[in-house]
Amino acid sequence: MSKNRSGNFFEDFRVGMKLRHATPRTLTEGDRSLYIGLTGSRSVLGTATTNARQLGFDVRPLEDLLVFNTAFGKTVPDISLNAVANLGYADVRFLAPVYPGDTLAVETEVIGLKENTSRRSGIVYVRSTAKNQHDEAVLTWVRWVMVHKRDVQADCPQAHVPPLPESVRVGSLPRHPFGPQVAQITALTGVADLWDDYAVGERIDHPGAMALNDSDHSIATRLYQNTAKAHFDARAASASEGRRLVYGGHVMSICKALAYDGIENALTMLAINAGSHVNPTLAGDTLVCATTVTGKFDLGDDHVGALRLRMIAAKNVEAASIVFPDTGAGRPAHSTNIVLDLDYTIAMPKKSATRSQ
Amino acid sequence: MSKNRSGNFFEDFRVGMKLRHATPRTLTEGDRSLYIGLTGSRSVLGTATTNARQLGFDVRPLEDLLVFNTAFGKTVPDISLNAVANLGYADVRFLAPVYPGDTLAVETEVIGLKENTSRRSGIVYVRSTAKNQHDEAVLTWVRWVMVHKRDVQADCPQAHVPPLPESVRVGSLPRHPFGPQVAQITALTGVADLWDDYAVGERIDHPGAMALNDSDHSIATRLYQNTAKAHFDARAASASEGRRLVYGGHVMSICKALAYDGIENALTMLAINAGSHVNPTLAGDTLVCATTVTGKFDLGDDHVGALRLRMIAAKNVEAASIVFPDTGAGRPAHSTNIVLDLDYTIAMPKKSATRSQ
Amino acid sequence: MSKNRSGNFFEDFRVGMKLRHATPRTLTEGDRSLYIGLTGSRSVLGTATTNARQLGFDVRPLEDLLVFNTAFGKTVPDISLNAVANLGYADVRFLAPVYPGDTLAVETEVIGLKENTSRRSGIVYVRSTAKNQHDEAVLTWVRWVMVHKRDVQADCPQAHVPPLPESVRVGSLPRHPFGPQVAQITALTGVADLWDDYAVGERIDHPGAMALNDSDHSIATRLYQNTAKAHFDARAASASEGRRLVYGGHVMSICKALAYDGIENALTMLAINAGSHVNPTLAGDTLVCATTVTGKFDLGDDHVGALRLRMIAAKNVEAASIVFPDTGAGRPAHSTNIVLDLDYTIAMPKKSATRSQ
Repeated sequence: MSKNRSGNFFEDFRVGMKLRHATPRTLTEGDRSLYIGLTGSRSVLGTATTNARQLGFDVRPLEDLLVFNTAFGKTVPDISLNAVANLGYADVRFLAPVYPGDTLAVETEVIGLKENTSRRSGIVYVRSTAKNQHDEAVLTWVRWVMVHKRDVQADCPQAHVPPLPESVRVGSLPRHPFGPQVAQITALTGVADLWDDYAVGERIDHPGAMALNDSDHSIATRLYQNTAKAHFDARAASASEGRRLVYGGHVMSICKALAYDGIENALTMLAINAGSHVNPTLAGDTLVCATTVTGKFDLGDDHVGALRLRMIAAKNVEAASIVFPDTGAGRPAHSTNIVLDLDYTIAMPKKSATRSQ
Repeated sequence: MSKNRSGNFFEDFRVGMKLRHATPRTLTEGDRSLYIGLTGSRSVLGTATTNARQLGFDVRPLEDLLVFNTAFGKTVPDISLNAVANLGYADVRFLAPVYPGDTLAVETEVIGLKENTSRRSGIVYVRSTAKNQHDEAVLTWVRWVMVHKRDVQADCPQAHVPPLPESVRVGSLPRHPFGPQVAQITALTGVADLWDDYAVGERIDHPGAMALNDSDHSIATRLYQNTAKAHFDARAASASEGRRLVYGGHVMSICKALAYDGIENALTMLAINAGSHVNPTLAGDTLVCATTVTGKFDLGDDHVGALRLRMIAAKNVEAASIVFPDTGAGRPAHSTNIVLDLDYTIAMPKKSATRSQ
Repeated sequence: MSKNRSGNFFEDFRVGMKLRHATPRTLTEGDRSLYIGLTGSRSVLGTATTNARQLGFDVRPLEDLLVFNTAFGKTVPDISLNAVANLGYADVRFLAPVYPGDTLAVETEVIGLKENTSRRSGIVYVRSTAKNQHDEAVLTWVRWVMVHKRDVQADCPQAHVPPLPESVRVGSLPRHPFGPQVAQITALTGVADLWDDYAVGERIDHPGAMALNDSDHSIATRLYQNTAKAHFDARAASASEGRRLVYGGHVMSICKALAYDGIENALTMLAINAGSHVNPTLAGDTLVCATTVTGKFDLGDDHVGALRLRMIAAKNVEAASIVFPDTGAGRPAHSTNIVLDLDYTIAMPKKSATRSQ
C-alpha cells in the first residue's frame, strides 16, 4: 500500500508491455514563447502567423522539437525515471503538424530488453506514439535507454534487441499537403537556397554558439514535464562530475536552432533517422554544430523535396573543427567533445515551386 | 514631495489599516506555461484542456499555487518590501477556480503587530483577499512577516497578536460542484489510489529532487511581480551568506510539484492550514519532500473527499531522512536542513464516485 | 555556394543599403508572460486587461520594450552579428501600440559608416522601422554599433556620420488618442502623482535592485531572436573578462521595471531621445537606477502630458550614489560602475484629466 513511487527499474520491464503515460498535455502559445526563449528557435513556420499563412497554413504550427520533447517527457516517469542515459533514437516520424491548443496523449510499447554484463543496468527499447485530441497520430519514435536495476541480483528476461531501420525509408516519410505558396519562403528569410541548391556531401558550419546554464536546461526539461532525476539532482547524475546532466532533447533543440543559419528555408522535420547523445553536456559547456547533407529525395512532390542531414554538435570547440566519423549517427566513435550525432530529414521547397507560380 | 518610494517599515503599520494593492493582474496561458517550466507542475487539471473537460470543467483552471503566488506578490510592495522573512501562513482558502484571462485584484487588512525585543524589526499580521474581475473572492489568506524598522528608536503600537485558527475548519473548507466524472481521473494518471485509499498517519516519500538556481527562482518571483528585495539583491538578504533568498512561495510550488508522485489524483488545493519557512533556501540547494496524511474528511460529498496533508521539505538530504516533529506545521522545531513545513488540504475523488458511474 | 553564413562585417556595409530582416515575428500573451518573468515589469497597461480597458484600450497592449527588443533582435543577424558593442540610440519613436497576435516585420537602411583608426572595426549607423501586419509603422529607431572587420586590411568607404537629433522634437512625439478615462490610473496604482506633480530637475532614486544571471539574460535575448554572439559565447565577448555580455536591451528592460517605483502612472513610452550602454554588464552584477526629470511638455492634450526623463543605471552600488554627468545621455563621461544612460520620454495623465471627469 506504500505510495512511495520509485518508477520502473530494468527488471520491471517485459517485451510487449504497453504503457499509457500520465497525463495528456495541452500545448499553447505560452509554451512556444518559452521554447523560443530557451532555444532561440527561428523556424519560419513557428515565428509568425503571417509566415504560416503565406506558406499555406491556417494556423502557425508548433515547433517540431517542442512537440518531440513534450511527447518524450510524457514517457519519462514510466520508462526512464531511473535512466543512466538515453542512448539513441530511431524511426522518429513527424506525422502531422501540432497547433497551439492541441493536446498530446502518449502511449509506449516495450519492444526490446538487454541486460548489461555488469548486471547493474540494462537497455530498454521502446516505441512511443503521440496522438492529438482527434486521436490522430502526430509523432512516433523508437528510443533505447540504459536503465538502472533496482536489484543487481534480479533475474531479467533473455535479451531481445529489436530490428531497427538504419533510417526512415523514403516511402515512409510523412507527406504533408504543401502547396505552391511554399516558394514564398525565400522572401521571408531573404535566403535563396532551396532544395535544389543543396548537394549530397556538402558541409555547413553553423556560425552560432550557445553557452548552457543549469537554469535554462532545467526550465526546458520541466516545461516538458520530464522528471528524469539526472537533470534535476546532481546526486543522481553519475558520470557527470557531480553536476546535473543536460537533457539531450534540449541539446537537440539548441543545435536545431543554431542550424537555422545555413538551412533557413527548412519547412518541417519529417523524420529523425538515428541519433545519439555521444557524451554528456553540462552547464558551462558552449555548443556549436555542423551539418552534412547525406541524402536528397524528390518525394514526387511538385513543391517540396526532402533533405537528409547529419548534424554533429560539439562542446567548447569551433564548428569548423568538428570531424564527421563514417560510422553513421547511430553507431558513433567520436572524440570526447562531440555531444550529439543526429541524422534527420527535413522538407524544403523546390525551385520548381518558385517557377510554377 | 520626494518620489523615492521606500515601502512601509514596521512602524508605518497600524492594526485595522486597509490596503488596495497595485495593480490588478491578468493571468494567461503564458503564465501557466512559465509556471510549468519553473516548477515542473504536473497537476491533472492544469496539464490539459481535455483533462479538465473530462473531469467536469469547461476550461482548464490555473494551478492553485500560481494563483496564490501571484496574489501574494501583489501584497509585497505594500507589506513586505522591507521584509526580513515571511514567517507563516494561516487560514488560506482557495475559494474558486481561476481561469486564463481572469484578473486578480488584491486587498489586505492589517490584523496584528508585534515589535521584536531587539526593536530592529517587528511582526506584521495581515489578512489578504484576491477577487476576480467579477468581484468574486477566489483566495483569502493570513500571513505574518517580519519587517525591518526604518528607525530603531521609532515608537510602535502595543503588541496585538490576532487569534489564528490552528487549521481551516472542515465546515469552512471551500466546496466545489464536482460531479461524478471526477472519477475518471484514475484513467488519466494511471494511478488507482483515491481518497478512500489514504490512511491518517500514512507517510509518502516523494521520489523527486529539484536543484534550485538563482535564475529560475528570480524569474518565478518576478513573474509574480513580487518585489521583495531579499530575493533580488543579495545585499538585502541578511542571514543568507551574502546570497539571494529563494522566495518561499517558489519552494512551495517546487515541492507541490514533487509531491505529485504519491498524490497523483489530487484535484485542487482547498486550504493551507498553516505553513512556515523554517530555514532559508538558497541557489544550489536541492529540495526533496515527504508527506504525512494528518486528516481525512468526508465533506458529505458523494464524489470528493478532503485529505489534510503535512508536507515537509528539506534541502540536500534524502526524503526518507526527513523527521516530522510533533510541533505542528505552524510551530516547528526543526533541524537546519528543513526549509518548509506545510499543512494543507486537498480535494480528491472518492471510490464511491467510481462506483456510482 | 558555401552556406557557412558569417553575417556582415564592417567592410560589407555601404551607406544607403536597405535590408529586410528575416523573418516577421508574431508576439503573444506568452511573450508577455515571459517578459514579465524576465524583467519584473509592472506597467499598468501591460499588467491587466481590466487596467487597459479602464484606461480606454480595447485590448491590453504589449510592453514597449518587449516590442523594442523584439524589433531590435530582428536586425541583429544582418547588422550586429559581429558586433563589438551596441554604442547608442537616437530618434526612437513608439508610433503605435502593439497587441498580442500582432506580427512585426522590420526593415533597415544604413545611414552612416565610420572605420575606427585601429582598422579592426568600424561604426555602422542604421535607421530601422518595424511595421505591423497592417503595414502600419509601430516603431522606428536609429542606432550605431561597432562591428568587427573580417579583414583588417579591407578598404572601407569614406567616413559618413549622419546628423542625429539630440532628442525627438516635441512636435515629432507620437500622439495617441488617450481619453479622459486615463485619469483613473491613480486608482489602479494607488499613487496620486501625475504629470503636473513632476518638476524639471527633480530626481528619483528607485528603491529596487536586480541581480543578473547568465540564464535569464540569455533567455531574454533568445526570446528576441537576437543572435549577437557576444551574449551567448564568452569567446566572442572581448573585453568582458571571458564572460558573456548582457544584452543592453535587457538592461534597459530591467531598469525600466525598477523605475516603476516613483513613476507609477506612466502610460507608455513615446520616444527614446538618446541612450548609451556606457560599460558592460555581466552576470553577477546587481543593477540599480535613478531618474531625473529633464523636460515637461504639455502636448496640447487635455488628458496627457509628456515627461522627458534621464535614467542612469549603475552596477553594484546604491542608487543614491549615482552621479548624473552634464554631458547628456548620448555623450557620457561616466564612472566605471555606470552601465546605462537613457534619455526617454513618456506619456502620463494630467490632473486636468482628473478634474475634467
